[in-house]
Amino acid sequence: MQPVQLGLMGCGTVGTGVARLLIHQQGIIQQRTGIPLVLRYVADIDRSTDRGVSFAPGVFIDDAWRVVNDPQVDIVIEMIGGTTLARDLVLAAIQKGKHVVTANKALLATHGNEIFKAAAAAGVDLAFEASVGGCMPIVKTLREALVGNSIQGMTGILNGTCNYILSKITEEGIAFATALAQAQAGGYAEADPTLDIGGFDTAHKLAILLALAYGTQIDYDGIYIEGISAITPLDIQFAADFGYRIKLLAISKNRGASVEARVHPAMIPLDNILSNVNGTLNAITVNGHAVQDLFLSGRGAGMMPTASAVLSDIVDLARNLRHGAVGRVPLTGCQPDQIRATPVMPVTEIVTHYYFRFTVEDKPGVLATIAGILGQNGISIKSVQQKGRKTDGHVPIVMLTHRAKESDVRKALDQIRGLGVVGAEPMLIRIEESDQEH
Amino acid sequence: MQPVQLGLMGCGTVGTGVARLLIHQQGIIQQRTGIPLVLRYVADIDRSTDRGVSFAPGVFIDDAWRVVNDPQVDIVIEMIGGTTLARDLVLAAIQKGKHVVTANKALLATHGNEIFKAAAAAGVDLAFEASVGGCMPIVKTLREALVGNSIQGMTGILNGTCNYILSKITEEGIAFATALAQAQAGGYAEADPTLDIGGFDTAHKLAILLALAYGTQIDYDGIYIEGISAITPLDIQFAADFGYRIKLLAISKNRGASVEARVHPAMIPLDNILSNVNGTLNAITVNGHAVQDLFLSGRGAGMMPTASAVLSDIVDLARNLRHGAVGRVPLTGCQPDQIRATPVMPVTEIVTHYYFRFTVEDKPGVLATIAGILGQNGISIKSVQQKGRKTDGHVPIVMLTHRAKESDVRKALDQIRGLGVVGAEPMLIRIEESDQEH
Repeated sequence: MQPVQLGLMGCGTVGTGVARLLIHQQGIIQQRTGIPLVLRYVADIDRSTDRGVSFAPGVFIDDAWRVVNDPQVDIVIEMIGGTTLARDLVLAAIQKGKHVVTANKALLATHGNEIFKAAAAAGVDLAFEASVGGCMPIVKTLREALVGNSIQGMTGILNGTCNYILSKITEEGIAFATALAQAQAGGYAEADPTLDIGGFDTAHKLAILLALAYGTQIDYDGIYIEGISAITPLDIQFAADFGYRIKLLAISKNRGASVEARVHPAMIPLDNILSNVNGTLNAITVNGHAVQDLFLSGRGAGMMPTASAVLSDIVDLARNLRHGAVGRVPLTGCQPDQIRATPVMPVTEIVTHYYFRFTVEDKPGVLATIAGILGQNGISIKSVQQKGRKTDGHVPIVMLTHRAKESDVRKALDQIRGLGVVGAEPMLIRIEESDQEH
Repeated sequence: MQPVQLGLMGCGTVGTGVARLLIHQQGIIQQRTGIPLVLRYVADIDRSTDRGVSFAPGVFIDDAWRVVNDPQVDIVIEMIGGTTLARDLVLAAIQKGKHVVTANKALLATHGNEIFKAAAAAGVDLAFEASVGGCMPIVKTLREALVGNSIQGMTGILNGTCNYILSKITEEGIAFATALAQAQAGGYAEADPTLDIGGFDTAHKLAILLALAYGTQIDYDGIYIEGISAITPLDIQFAADFGYRIKLLAISKNRGASVEARVHPAMIPLDNILSNVNGTLNAITVNGHAVQDLFLSGRGAGMMPTASAVLSDIVDLARNLRHGAVGRVPLTGCQPDQIRATPVMPVTEIVTHYYFRFTVEDKPGVLATIAGILGQNGISIKSVQQKGRKTDGHVPIVMLTHRAKESDVRKALDQIRGLGVVGAEPMLIRIEESDQEH
């Protein structure tokens, strides 16, 4: 069979992994697919790093535009990252009729509608399995395996850095800053960790999942995002006392005319399988009306696990090319003319369980006053805990609520802040009960 | 786009689920695929059961051969089960150039080589996602998502009946027979449960997975099979004391020139995610050289979860048909001319950790004698526990071993049986340590 010509743009960690798989696994890939894959170009401005793999003469170049401009290249693999040069290269490649593989969640979350539209117009395939959940085949699962399901919700741990930090705080009782520093020292967090710990990377991934699950346009800006930097060992300890673990979750629920889409730290019960996904692992539960809960877990990052997902995309596209089936599966799993612009429900409209930790003056009547305000706002308390860890004349009061509306909760917290007995900003953590929807 | 004509053969539990999805999810399936799916026939000899779905006139028939013989039918869906009529119908459909979807693991485990050969020769697609693990997309994951990986091993809980029974014994301390009776009363076990509790159903599924993971022919007869009926609450309690749970596992390891393939009850550490897969759930960990451990879990049986997997196969084949890409993915994930006949390693050659429970006369020297025999056979003891639960003058002695060879273990047990101090058949349960391979 005629070889498929590949052009890899960007040879950092994941790009190197892709090159290694293409070269070292050449035999087994051909046994499986019958299609020879030829790595025609590897473009990177860094020519000095040893990638642990040897390229044929002329393969390694420093100009990614040569990849896009070479008419021999069938598939470009965008591993550059970022949303500027990567966007230009991807759009140019599409316009030249090339098929595209990318792992760039930031690019798809922020320019996905434009890119998918361009690809559909040009009649090229664009695959992005590695953009969400590393090696977990969640894109393929949503686009293909669950094709008969109405998706009712998704709950995911989609950022290994945050999961590593929260696991560290949970296991060792250390402060957030210490856990972050350890993550940075171990190579599990970037020097500038904002994208990860701020929840933005998780939200990029959730934006992509929403489009796949619900047949909607990508709406990154609609997603509510809260990071993990405010989480303290004290909250994690209280969570454990009540039978919960704290994870940074990407949560989505199908509300018919709208979708819930939010990224925030959440307490989940210990009997929820996600509570036992620790360290840098990623995981996701998808609730489909026919399958019920389907759960995937695996390495969400790292050279070879991510490269494995990129390779599966390359092979999918190569199979489409050689079997004349480009466009066999629509880019986001839905026919382009059927994609809707379903709005994300404002976070103030969500209804869930809450954990509050108030730091209050240690004097009589404070608990009653707070409870009164919550009651006036229609918030019913399920459980209260007051432990004698006094600091500066203040004590923590922890409350767990029954289901309450976020707007009511915010109103109540504003009133409680105004009481003058609260010593620090109240802590709010949402609780995802396994049986919440039933 | 031209509709794809479907013929459903067998409308029992799963067949009914497939019919419901095709009818109730028609709109969303077409939004996603752009391909109209027409349920032309539903063939079943039982015309009286209410399937909760209404068929157009002429759709419901009682003769499955009419489905196979109608030239208008593009895809036949075999939901009859068994290995006789189902085999005849599938082979006839293939010879008439029809594409086939089946969930029949017994059929593929015992006649798969013949059926795959016939399908390849006829140039038709044959899909079987629902034959292993119900709604979990493990076939798609092995054939497509892990295409760049050398698969190093797989460990699965693939039979919901056994997992339900073992979970019941673990949670309630009841005897096997009681748990089986409860499973039968609850509809989780058949009236004749042999296929499930004997481990045969799990082995059927493992036989299919071996072909997908390693590019080998199907070799059901090579698989070592032990069921769960000998497991007692006492063993489950001892397992818990040592930090293990007992599950019926399908285990496979890539040994290069051969593969390990065995189905038996095994102890797994509580920190292995499989140990927390309870009730009727199925789960599998696949270890690929690039992805490391990838884990899937979901409903392994039941009307709608299984129907969801069947539907994904129907859509895959319909996409291939309408995009002219039949044969896009080889039937078992490997080009037919590249399939090898890799032998299954004899179980006597495996090396693992063992749990033994001896029921011995309560007198001095017995423990030393047993330990001596184990030592003479090169079996090193890691831990011994003797608890005072005396019955008929006998006490249980439990031993955990370091890694030992099965043939040495069998030899030692024969010698111990011959001692005359052993009051009942020694219990042997293999232990799958998470780090065994590292």
